[in-house]
Amino acid sequence: MITGKNYIGNLLSSVGNKTFKTFNPIANKENDTLFVEASEVEILQATELAAEAYKLFQKVSGHKKSEFLNEIANQIENLGDTLLKTYCLESGFPESRAITERGRTIFQLYSFANLVKEGSWVEAVIETANPNRTPIPKVDLRKMLVALGPVVVFGASNFPLAYSTAGGDTAAAFAAGCPVIVKSHPMHAGTGELVASAIIKAAEITGMPNGVFSNLNSSGIQVGISLVKNPKVKAVGFTGSIQGGRALYNLATQRDEPIPVFAEMGSINPVILLPKAAKLKGADWAKTYASSITLGSGQFCTNPGLILGIKGNDLSNFIQVLSEEIVQHEPNCMLHPTIIGAYESNKATMLVQKGLKISSEFTGEVAPNYGRQLITTVEGATFLENTKLHQEVFGPFSMVVQCKNKEELAMIISNLEGQLTGTILAENEIEDYTSIVNALKNRVGRIIFNGVPTGVEVCPAMVHGGPYPASTDSRFTAVGTESIKRWVRPFSYQNWPNELLPNELKNENSLGISRLVNGVSTKSKL
Amino acid sequence: MITGKNYIGNLLSSVGNKTFKTFNPIANKENDTLFVEASEVEILQATELAAEAYKLFQKVSGHKKSEFLNEIANQIENLGDTLLKTYCLESGFPESRAITERGRTIFQLYSFANLVKEGSWVEAVIETANPNRTPIPKVDLRKMLVALGPVVVFGASNFPLAYSTAGGDTAAAFAAGCPVIVKSHPMHAGTGELVASAIIKAAEITGMPNGVFSNLNSSGIQVGISLVKNPKVKAVGFTGSIQGGRALYNLATQRDEPIPVFAEMGSINPVILLPKAAKLKGADWAKTYASSITLGSGQFCTNPGLILGIKGNDLSNFIQVLSEEIVQHEPNCMLHPTIIGAYESNKATMLVQKGLKISSEFTGEVAPNYGRQLITTVEGATFLENTKLHQEVFGPFSMVVQCKNKEELAMIISNLEGQLTGTILAENEIEDYTSIVNALKNRVGRIIFNGVPTGVEVCPAMVHGGPYPASTDSRFTAVGTESIKRWVRPFSYQNWPNELLPNELKNENSLGISRLVNGVSTKSKL
Repeated sequence: MITGKNYIGNLLSSVGNKTFKTFNPIANKENDTLFVEASEVEILQATELAAEAYKLFQKVSGHKKSEFLNEIANQIENLGDTLLKTYCLESGFPESRAITERGRTIFQLYSFANLVKEGSWVEAVIETANPNRTPIPKVDLRKMLVALGPVVVFGASNFPLAYSTAGGDTAAAFAAGCPVIVKSHPMHAGTGELVASAIIKAAEITGMPNGVFSNLNSSGIQVGISLVKNPKVKAVGFTGSIQGGRALYNLATQRDEPIPVFAEMGSINPVILLPKAAKLKGADWAKTYASSITLGSGQFCTNPGLILGIKGNDLSNFIQVLSEEIVQHEPNCMLHPTIIGAYESNKATMLVQKGLKISSEFTGEVAPNYGRQLITTVEGATFLENTKLHQEVFGPFSMVVQCKNKEELAMIISNLEGQLTGTILAENEIEDYTSIVNALKNRVGRIIFNGVPTGVEVCPAMVHGGPYPASTDSRFTAVGTESIKRWVRPFSYQNWPNELLPNELKNENSLGISRLVNGVSTKSKL
Repeated sequence: MITGKNYIGNLLSSVGNKTFKTFNPIANKENDTLFVEASEVEILQATELAAEAYKLFQKVSGHKKSEFLNEIANQIENLGDTLLKTYCLESGFPESRAITERGRTIFQLYSFANLVKEGSWVEAVIETANPNRTPIPKVDLRKMLVALGPVVVFGASNFPLAYSTAGGDTAAAFAAGCPVIVKSHPMHAGTGELVASAIIKAAEITGMPNGVFSNLNSSGIQVGISLVKNPKVKAVGFTGSIQGGRALYNLATQRDEPIPVFAEMGSINPVILLPKAAKLKGADWAKTYASSITLGSGQFCTNPGLILGIKGNDLSNFIQVLSEEIVQHEPNCMLHPTIIGAYESNKATMLVQKGLKISSEFTGEVAPNYGRQLITTVEGATFLENTKLHQEVFGPFSMVVQCKNKEELAMIISNLEGQLTGTILAENEIEDYTSIVNALKNRVGRIIFNGVPTGVEVCPAMVHGGPYPASTDSRFTAVGTESIKRWVRPFSYQNWPNELLPNELKNENSLGISRLVNGVSTKSKL
């Protein structure tokens, strides 16, 4: 069922001569299928097709787009066990995770289907003419959001379904009316091809134009570079490392015609354990965080990599319980030898930093590619002066920073880079730490009270993104239906004949959407 | 009343040693006041103050921000004739234009004041918790838009009031909760200082933090460069040339922490004269366009610099009437010797392009700095192959492209760069040109039917912006209250205690704003 080929629009294609295989980290061996990397010719074909498809797809009704999105979900479900098995073979994740992530992916597709079927997301604004206004008559102006053009989506290693081929970026772009070219992630190229086949089938069943979707294999960086530089491409979605995201951002912003890149990148997700919480609930939080840090072998953008508290017995007790608890968790398999390789090497870099101490480490025997959890501690002053300690260690790792006092804690927060999340653990004391909380708010996209940052709810109130380098543009979220805003622009019609307007802006409002008409929100016709 | 100094927050300051004067283009001589360019020290002071002010200003209520914005408008009115006279002395515009533009500026300030007083612009979204959801309980998530941080605004030469010191960018940034540092335009530094004094007075009267506004003089590019590179600066607004806007965009995107730049740049604003319109209304349109091209000496971003039609007698007649009419208009004074210098040199560059013909030129005597209008014509094929002919000539200039047929016209539209506006002049024929209209839509931010692109209505249905290089980010507009979106980001609270939430997100909804609560738009409390 998996061919190893690229989808250039509806056609399977493999004219290139660079091949690669995916890897089963649990069995510690390559999987069987040989994947053929997309050639420059195929990249050009895919972008040309996408540009042609855009002319038609941007005008497809919300109703038809919702059919397409729902059908993608159906076709993904139809892949059944084949998809789950491939997912597990290519990621080392257990089947339970495969099922959960498939559920999330399908939920995202349904969410966007509902959004575009209802239709009000286009933010229609109508100002009717006033020919009697002096000195200048007022024109009729009608605005709505329209699709930007072909979008390139880079699949993420750690979410082979939900942030990859038919993940949030793709679903949002389709909902917006943008064709999508996926640069498939080499670690799960088989999963990617299966999902791509589901999208292609759905496009054919629901009558979408050829080129609305392409799926390109790649093992290195060249396919991605060529795509981002291609003039037919009008926007880029990426989830991954700071290094990778920044490289794409630089390419995109240095084009003759710069294009927007939404890259959701690294984060250490600071957690502040306030003194009363440490005293009254320290042991409970330690247990909770031992689970959060090791969940999915720490392979989440929102993994709590930094815990900050004020030095003293209560923080010491917290560290002790966390240290004891975390080694009770069985290590998990990580995604790929390169991921565990980076984890080991990043840990090693951390451990040679002056002042960093190991508080707890899983030292038992593990199978190859299993990530051993590590808890470290450091003094606040040491952390403050060495920014190497602020870097992300992707995996089951966390660092507890012991601050001398409130002021040092505040100083550290103000000096952190941008983050996806920040968490406050507190017991009736938060009012005493207002300036710390405010400083944290300015560094993050989402702030959590008495909880863990892992677990990203898919809903319109979610912000997944944040000040750089959490993302390249903090003005957008990567999760939730609001993420559609990344792929659209406002467009305005002046004195346009009613019969030639899109349905969203016609007097009749046959779609029954909510519109702002002369300053009043209404679903009525004009 | 004009000191020539910078406002570093509330204080006048002039420690630098570089000075300059503004120029009166009508009298063709320098104005008296000596302006002192901001020094690097003052730039650092202004950015530090802005960063400190941000901590307070971002939390100022919508009600208080509306008082601030309204008071700026009052203080601008209080400047009375001094402002109008300075404006005219520094721009060469007549007093009538000064009055109109002041009215527009005040209207913009009132618009944003009303927006933030009402408060729903923050797009509050609330999803309440569901502890019984399986397998994972649903958390409480509440999202709203928050201010990005200090914004640098570059004043525009051609709108000394409406797109400058207290213009749309500044008003939008204040409304968002962002302190503003204006890089004052050297051509109207006196007008800029007067308006700056009005903003400072308003800030003091309404109790805004010191540093919420600074106004920096500059005659060259160094002040702007230093501001854009300063780490305390979090966003940039610019209106001006492609060269200038792109240079700032490159600086901002190459920072360690890249920041968004919204640059509204050049545009030739293509107008398509369809055959029936040329036949039935050609002479009328020619007269209308003779006025539009010469309005304000062509010094508008939306000046119609390109008119396209299909070759034949009707188009020839249009060209003839346009040519006859345009020389009936008296030439106007342009803004500055450098502006008219660029106009003359850009015209000269155009006129040496093979195949470009002069159709009409004002050849009478004019005073120094007056811009003489010029209409040129060219064959479609020639235009298509020489992209130098696609460049903007800022001033009372337009080019009529005579296309062989519909296909050539379509080809030309598809090959144009991004534009602020596109216009269709048609008589019951537009359905025959669907692909041309669609191609035009994909190149512009606003499309106009049977009108002129000049005249940019300030209202929520306006889009002033468009695909690059019309603007650096087509996802935003520079005009209308929606332009506030450039300076904000979404921010999400998870399980946050109700009493600690901002008023916009509290259960009580004491502000009475419209919110999306569990998917339903409502002004009710929870």
